Amino acid sequence: MHPFSAHPPETVSALGERRLIEAIRRWLGDTSPRTPFGIGDDCAVLPIIPGHSLLTVDPVIYGEHFDDAVSPQAAGEKLFKRNLSDIAAMGGRPVAAVVALAFDGRLKTRWLAAFYRGLAAVSRRYQVPIVGGDIARQREGVVATLTLLGRAASRVVTRTGARPGDALYVTGRLGGSRLRHHWAFTPRLEQGAWLARQRGVRSMMDVSDGLAKDLLALAPAGTVPALDGAALPVSAAARRLARTSGRTAIDHALSDGEDYELVFSFAADAPAGPFEARWRRTFPSLPLTRIGRFLPPAEARAADALDLGAYHGFEHLAHRPDAHRKPRRRRPSP
Amino acid sequence: MHPFSAHPPETVSALGERRLIEAIRRWLGDTSPRTPFGIGDDCAVLPIIPGHSLLTVDPVIYGEHFDDAVSPQAAGEKLFKRNLSDIAAMGGRPVAAVVALAFDGRLKTRWLAAFYRGLAAVSRRYQVPIVGGDIARQREGVVATLTLLGRAASRVVTRTGARPGDALYVTGRLGGSRLRHHWAFTPRLEQGAWLARQRGVRSMMDVSDGLAKDLLALAPAGTVPALDGAALPVSAAARRLARTSGRTAIDHALSDGEDYELVFSFAADAPAGPFEARWRRTFPSLPLTRIGRFLPPAEARAADALDLGAYHGFEHLAHRPDAHRKPRRRRPSP
Repeated sequence: MHPFSAHPPETVSALGERRLIEAIRRWLGDTSPRTPFGIGDDCAVLPIIPGHSLLTVDPVIYGEHFDDAVSPQAAGEKLFKRNLSDIAAMGGRPVAAVVALAFDGRLKTRWLAAFYRGLAAVSRRYQVPIVGGDIARQREGVVATLTLLGRAASRVVTRTGARPGDALYVTGRLGGSRLRHHWAFTPRLEQGAWLARQRGVRSMMDVSDGLAKDLLALAPAGTVPALDGAALPVSAAARRLARTSGRTAIDHALSDGEDYELVFSFAADAPAGPFEARWRRTFPSLPLTRIGRFLPPAEARAADALDLGAYHGFEHLAHRPDAHRKPRRRRPSP
Repeated sequence: MHPFSAHPPETVSALGERRLIEAIRRWLGDTSPRTPFGIGDDCAVLPIIPGHSLLTVDPVIYGEHFDDAVSPQAAGEKLFKRNLSDIAAMGGRPVAAVVALAFDGRLKTRWLAAFYRGLAAVSRRYQVPIVGGDIARQREGVVATLTLLGRAASRVVTRTGARPGDALYVTGRLGGSRLRHHWAFTPRLEQGAWLARQRGVRSMMDVSDGLAKDLLALAPAGTVPALDGAALPVSAAARRLARTSGRTAIDHALSDGEDYELVFSFAADAPAGPFEARWRRTFPSLPLTRIGRFLPPAEARAADALDLGAYHGFEHLAHRPDAHRKPRRRRPSP
């Protein structure tokens, strides 16, 4: 659905601030607790969080993260789930969210209602209340920013901690997210929390900009990710795109981004077999794939590993003149 | 400073994502802790907060909350301070902030550097680290959204709790914020924390949309705010504006908004004299003014109180065709 209307009665401007806030509370329903624990005061008051908290923020922006081909409900779900994926990547549990919206006053009320219903659906599914927010005008476009507070598990799994020789694993399948997955994905909260309890897991992140780019953040000094191209779990969507894109399916799997899967390092000296067996018992329907190791560059070349330098992840500030029409992330074939 | 440049080398797009993130970390300096306690992982890991947390989010948007007449440093300071004011309004203490930016790729690097330096200055002044964030493109404009986590005092002062007959107090002076105060104000953190410890203080909020509008949120059922027009602490800026605006200084004081002062109710049966004397000893340079009481409408009329219905606060979604050129909030005289 296109977010804007040239017909004023259909727009949020016609509704006005007070009625719009009332409508938002109605759209959010039981996912927004009563003040002071939710919307309606200067701040939301949150429950006591034992241990460390986690904090993350990510937006969805019209023309960048969604377009007219994505339903407003799916755009709202995507906003929430992107942030849940960040909490999952550290093994944490989500606690509460706040949402700030900036939009052109020509925004359709119907669009916004569906967007908030998407937020509410995810809130309900993962039991994470939406405790506050803000609405404000801007001249053009829609920017929705969600900040998510979480609580850390007894162990916080960060991006650092991998050592040379450690194995690399990824959940799910990669590539082709622009066809559907970029809004239809499931954040790996259960898996992240489970992985944080496994001793061999040393570092973790979610795959948002594409494995080729994201993996660089996990690599210990003096190593590169040495990937086995044949092992890479390439999605059906990546293979479908490769038929017409002039790029390989592996390129799509490494570069498309927005996979929202978990990638993690596993200690070389930890028992991998029992770990993989435990995974299969716990998450029988979600593939876990060993895709390679962190090796010194010379050893990676000798092992005939994929040359990740030939692939690129998503570059957030790249010049994309048609970004407002075709917002999904892509790169020309290298 | 105008935020955008038609000369590509001056823009953030020329810098690219990796170098821009490096630059942001440099601009923030010691106000951004090292990962995992700051920027650089999927989430920031926060210290353990004893007791309840507070969470609030507010943006600054180009053309709405600042314009070319406001320096980028002041715009950054304003963003941070608006949120600090919300924590102050509940008597809390700020703990950590995250900042998400959405901007047109033509944004000047020099503008953004000064904006982040403004954020860093406030971070340093109030000892609140900036622990995470996001940067993303949009087609036009600048939206900067800050989410602030705080910790509650042993008592959280909400907007509800006033009773009929309670006195109303406001800190500082009101009106005319668009001349300078809307970015130059000081969030009343010390005062908010102090007021939360005073037994007579029953409810509190900060004045952001103008007293005429904001006070309605504090009024107990069956009452109206009965204000003494002569007692109202009108700012010099409100008097200056009134000379040429065709509106009264009191109208400016009640309707302009962005005062970021604290307004609170004080129990009718609590000793007001000793309370006021303690305030003067504690905050000798900040006026505290008793401006009226919450009364049933008939009693308010009999007391010759200001008719607040004749004044209006800021309406966030009102049609302002020139909002991008004259973003400061105002209303025609009633």
